Amino acid sequence: MMNDDEMITLKPIGVLHSAVTRLEDVPSHWTRSSLEGDIEIFKEYREGLNGIEELDYIVVIFFFHKSGKEYSLIQKPPHDDKMRGVFSICSPFRPNPIGLSVVKLLNVKDNILHVKNIDMVDGTPILDIKPYIPLKNME
Amino acid sequence: MMNDDEMITLKPIGVLHSAVTRLEDVPSHWTRSSLEGDIEIFKEYREGLNGIEELDYIVVIFFFHKSGKEYSLIQKPPHDDKMRGVFSICSPFRPNPIGLSVVKLLNVKDNILHVKNIDMVDGTPILDIKPYIPLKNME
Repeated sequence: MMNDDEMITLKPIGVLHSAVTRLEDVPSHWTRSSLEGDIEIFKEYREGLNGIEELDYIVVIFFFHKSGKEYSLIQKPPHDDKMRGVFSICSPFRPNPIGLSVVKLLNVKDNILHVKNIDMVDGTPILDIKPYIPLKNME
Repeated sequence: MMNDDEMITLKPIGVLHSAVTRLEDVPSHWTRSSLEGDIEIFKEYREGLNGIEELDYIVVIFFFHKSGKEYSLIQKPPHDDKMRGVFSICSPFRPNPIGLSVVKLLNVKDNILHVKNIDMVDGTPILDIKPYIPLKNME
């Protein structure tokens, strides 16, 4: 996975399906979204979903496939009048364009996760699904 | 970033330095760790840290560089007597070996983030840093 030149290669495990196909219509953050949609996990990874129906919330790691390679280290977020470093904000324009959303898991049918609180555009490549673990559990 | 064969390539933006150099000594999860260490963000990304000192907790996205390419879709987590799908647990052995930890940001000096609650081994490649946003903010 780690080559000589330190590049890391990943491959999508699934894809998001939603009614929102234009970037400008995507909710700006999962905390501000009530949008529902389906995460299709590709058939070859289906077994990895075993037991996931027990979870109320899941973490979705995805690829900002529409962001391209352009980013600035300092950006002005929407709804903010201050310039901020990219690592202190949730902008899709990042050195590594990886997104993270916490979504509510409404139901699971075979390899399809029906979820709420989406802030991804239709067609977004999914890289990983993890259980959501709240900070209050921290020592 | 997305090639013809749908592979996604990423490059580390930094590296973790800690006293824990053996995998077997790494705390099993950030909720069960009080270990401190330093995240070195490479100099070329230094500006991206602007304003990060205002945050109490940050999300660290990293590469499980010691896990290799071996994984099972069904695994038995430590401290659990049930086999579970990989997407419902935090195992480092995943189709895409991406890790996620929430750590406490103790202080920032130039390009070094001193953090607590580490569950990564010394030398772990860092892929992204994001602000931690609690679920209670969700609509």
